[in-house]
Formats: sequence, structure tokens, C-alpha cells
Amino acid sequence: MKGRRLSLVFLFFFFFFFFVILLSSSSAHPHKRILRHEPCNHLVLYFHDIVYNGKNAANATSAIVGMPEWGNRTILAGLNHFGDMVVFDDPITVDNNLHSPPVGRAQGFYFYDRKEIFTSWLGFSFVLNSTDHKGTINFAGADPLMNKTRDISVIGGTGDFFMTRGVATIMTDAFEGEVYFRLQVDIKLYECY
Amino acid sequence: MKGRRLSLVFLFFFFFFFFVILLSSSSAHPHKRILRHEPCNHLVLYFHDIVYNGKNAANATSAIVGMPEWGNRTILAGLNHFGDMVVFDDPITVDNNLHSPPVGRAQGFYFYDRKEIFTSWLGFSFVLNSTDHKGTINFAGADPLMNKTRDISVIGGTGDFFMTRGVATIMTDAFEGEVYFRLQVDIKLYECY
Amino acid sequence: MKGRRLSLVFLFFFFFFFFVILLSSSSAHPHKRILRHEPCNHLVLYFHDIVYNGKNAANATSAIVGMPEWGNRTILAGLNHFGDMVVFDDPITVDNNLHSPPVGRAQGFYFYDRKEIFTSWLGFSFVLNSTDHKGTINFAGADPLMNKTRDISVIGGTGDFFMTRGVATIMTDAFEGEVYFRLQVDIKLYECY
Repeated sequence: MKGRRLSLVFLFFFFFFFFVILLSSSSAHPHKRILRHEPCNHLVLYFHDIVYNGKNAANATSAIVGMPEWGNRTILAGLNHFGDMVVFDDPITVDNNLHSPPVGRAQGFYFYDRKEIFTSWLGFSFVLNSTDHKGTINFAGADPLMNKTRDISVIGGTGDFFMTRGVATIMTDAFEGEVYFRLQVDIKLYECY
Repeated sequence: MKGRRLSLVFLFFFFFFFFVILLSSSSAHPHKRILRHEPCNHLVLYFHDIVYNGKNAANATSAIVGMPEWGNRTILAGLNHFGDMVVFDDPITVDNNLHSPPVGRAQGFYFYDRKEIFTSWLGFSFVLNSTDHKGTINFAGADPLMNKTRDISVIGGTGDFFMTRGVATIMTDAFEGEVYFRLQVDIKLYECY
Repeated sequence: MKGRRLSLVFLFFFFFFFFVILLSSSSAHPHKRILRHEPCNHLVLYFHDIVYNGKNAANATSAIVGMPEWGNRTILAGLNHFGDMVVFDDPITVDNNLHSPPVGRAQGFYFYDRKEIFTSWLGFSFVLNSTDHKGTINFAGADPLMNKTRDISVIGGTGDFFMTRGVATIMTDAFEGEVYFRLQVDIKLYECY
């Protein structure tokens, strides 16, 4: 009798255990699909780009460094700026105010790559240094800037963002002439360590 | 007796269960090695680069925007084009015909980086917009273009190619003078979401 | 009695088994956190950059190809070289001696992106071809070069480094004037295939 009671206890444990394993393995195996729907980290930040135009040396945060035959270094070229390459070191803020205390710097380059419409390509890093975040996030991707929102890739990170990956949605929040641009970056990280 | 029979049944289940777990854990744990042999997605596409040479403004899809001291903006420089940087927006086709309906645009830049032989470095996106594919694939890597095939990295993606990673094998499919280049890109994705 | 003894044997196996599973699942599930502390591959290499200055054509391994309005192609510009873009093909060695037999080439570009201090941004590949390693490692990230060490991302790889990811710590090992730079790169790979 005692043997039988023990056996029933085993039976209970066995199936309880079986379901625990099933659950844990199903969450472990296709975890990438699950991650898709829930970013492991989410940041919304702004950065502010002031292109050097020959007269704003004190305030400029970026400069044209490459250009096609029809371009020059102090004004974005014709043909939708096709071929202009810009290097930047722009302040990052948590709101859309250029004069808010920066939480880091957006550093990298972009270029305009099409004659027919405005479209660009970006490679840059967010170098964050605030009480909330210390580390870098690296980005790359096409930026068809006539679209309201554009998705680029988060290709890596360091520090607080060690080895991260994800997608960032870029939106042009404001622009003034062809000198000041403000971009909102909605960063969704799907791989965190 | 009943207790003993039950115990034998347990013994059977226990080892059956043990092997099931062993199997599932061995497939779950080193799953990356398994993925290596079977891409989760595979595309073969072509893109067509027509470098601006001062006379082909209407047809050109790319332009020299950076160059060394001995270079200029309308012809690829001496010393194996060392230092020439080109920005491009090239049509992508599913076959090797420049005039096939494009399924997207290859947008990015490349530069030649060696004096002694032709070798370049690429950073670009495939911006796909067809009935089959909507989304972007981002690439980066060295392109030693005298080799028949060269492997570069797929570093991320968006849309249909959300968060993807992989390897792309590039082959120069044709070239005419130093103005027209056609590249075949064999994209093998090993991480899909 | 026999039933009871068998039951105790089961009890023993059951809990032994339970802990084995717990252990294996804890290593399988959050394996990324564990990987953080133990790279799956680790390389320390050096590369040597000799910037073209108009007089060292024979030895130069890199050249200024983009620059701001105040720059030129044979000397790094004022304002902390802000806007200078350099393309390079540098020898990689296993020690800090420029004349050691190279194990590959570091190919890519960097630019200086800030007026106030020296800081740069890097995109490049290690193209390794030695008895130890055949394949490429691709890097991208901000390089605030006044810091003793800087972390950038390993964004992908091919060949022996198929699909790899990780973090590389860069250190300026030596520099002479503004012509010769030697960088130590401590590569820690956390995703290997």
C-alpha cells in the first residue's frame, strides 16, 4: 500500500515536472519570435544637426566633406543633394528642444544618394553619457527621408548596450532651410544582454 | 505486486522521457551551428552601377564624391582607384538585364582602398519594394574585387527582413570600361524572425 | 518491500535528473548573459596606418579623400581634423612591430567628426589570411580617441569568422606626428558559429 501511494506521488510529480519542462523549452527555443513583439529596451531620443554653410562656424555641428562634380562644401548640392556626404557630431536630447541639456552625441556620417528625390544613407553612433545610460548604440541603413518614418538597423552596441541589436524608426521632427535638421529616433532593441 | 508493476511503468516512462529531453536540449542548445548549414532565406539579385563620368548625367546612378590628391570627380583615379569614394543608387533586378523591371534600389557607398591592386569596401542597403519583398537588407564588408566571389556581412534588416543577419556572396557579373558594373548578390540569411 | 525500495531508487533518480535538467536549462536559456563573461574567441592584433602627406607615396597606406572647406588632401585639417575622411588599407601584425610579417589587411575608412576635441568614427574589415585565420571580421563604431581605450562593435564576419558578433577594444599604441598611427585591437567575440 505504501509502495502504491508513493507511486502515485511520483506520477503526480512526473507529469507536473513534464509540463514545467515543456513550458520552459517552448519559451527557450523560438525565443526570437517572441522577442519580436516585445522590445527588451526602448528609447526615444532627438538629435540636432546644424550643417556648416560658410557663415555658422561657431554653431555648426556637421560639415559637407564629399560632393559630386556639381557640389561644393558650403551648400547642399542640386539634384536633390545627390552625392553630398556630411560628417556630424550632433547633440542628443530627450525632448525636441535644441537647448535641453544633451545626454550624449550622435556621431557619424550621411550622404544623399539619389538624383530624382531626396534620399540618404546613414552610419552613426549614439554615444550616451548620462545618469541613465552610459554606452554606445551603432546604427546603419537607408533613410528615404521623404517618408514620414523610416526604419534603420541597430547593428551593435557597447557599455549599457553591450551587443544589442534592434530597429530604429527615424522621423524628421523639424527642419529650417537646409541648415538645421531635427530627427526623432525611436529605438527598439530586441536583443539585450 | 501492483506497486512493482507501476514502478516498471515509471521506469519505462522515465527513460523515454529522458531521451526526449536529451534530444530536444541538444537541438535547442547549439542551434546556431545547425542554422549554418541551412539558410532560413535565400535571394539572388543583381544591381547595376553606372558611374557619372561628366557626360552621362541622365543615365548615371552613382558619382565619385571623395578622392585622393591625384583623383577627380569624373574619372576613377590612378593607383587602382585608391581613395576614390562613390555614392550610388542603383536599380536591383532579378536577372542580369539592366532593363528588367527593378524590384528595388541598392543604395550606399563604396571606396577603393588599396594602391597595389583593385580592392574596395562596401556599405549599402537593398531597399526592396515588390510584390515578393518589402523591406531593407543592410550590408557591410570588404570587397576584394579581383576575386571571383567575395563574402560580405548582412548586418541587419527591416520590414520583411526584420532583424535578419547572414552572409552575401558578391560576384562581378559584367563590366564595361570603368563606367558600368553589374554585380550578382547571393544573399543567404541565417537569422530570420 | 521491494516496491518501496524501487520507489526510493526512483526518488533518487528523479531528483538527480531534476537537477541535471535545471542545470542544463539554466545554461541554455539565458546563455547570452553567461556568454558575456566568456568570449567564444579572442584575438589581439595591431594595425599600422601611414597617412599620405604628399611626400610619402611609396609608404603611405591611407589617404585623405574627404575634407571640410578648411581642409586639404595632404595634411589633416585644423579644428581637430573635423571633417577629414580617410580611406585605408593597413597591414595587420600580431605584435607591435610595423615590419613583422602581416597576417592580413585592415581595410576601411575613418573620419574625424568633432570640432572641439579629437574624436573619430570607424568602419572597416580585418581581412585575415594566415595559417591561423582565413576570413574577415567587420567593425563599426565611434572612436573617441582621446580615451585610453574605446569599444566598437563587431557587426559580422565571414570564413573562419562566419556570422560572428562581439566587441573590440581599441587602444592607440603609438603615433608619430600626424602620419603614423598604430592601433591595438583586442577582439572579443561572443557569438561564434
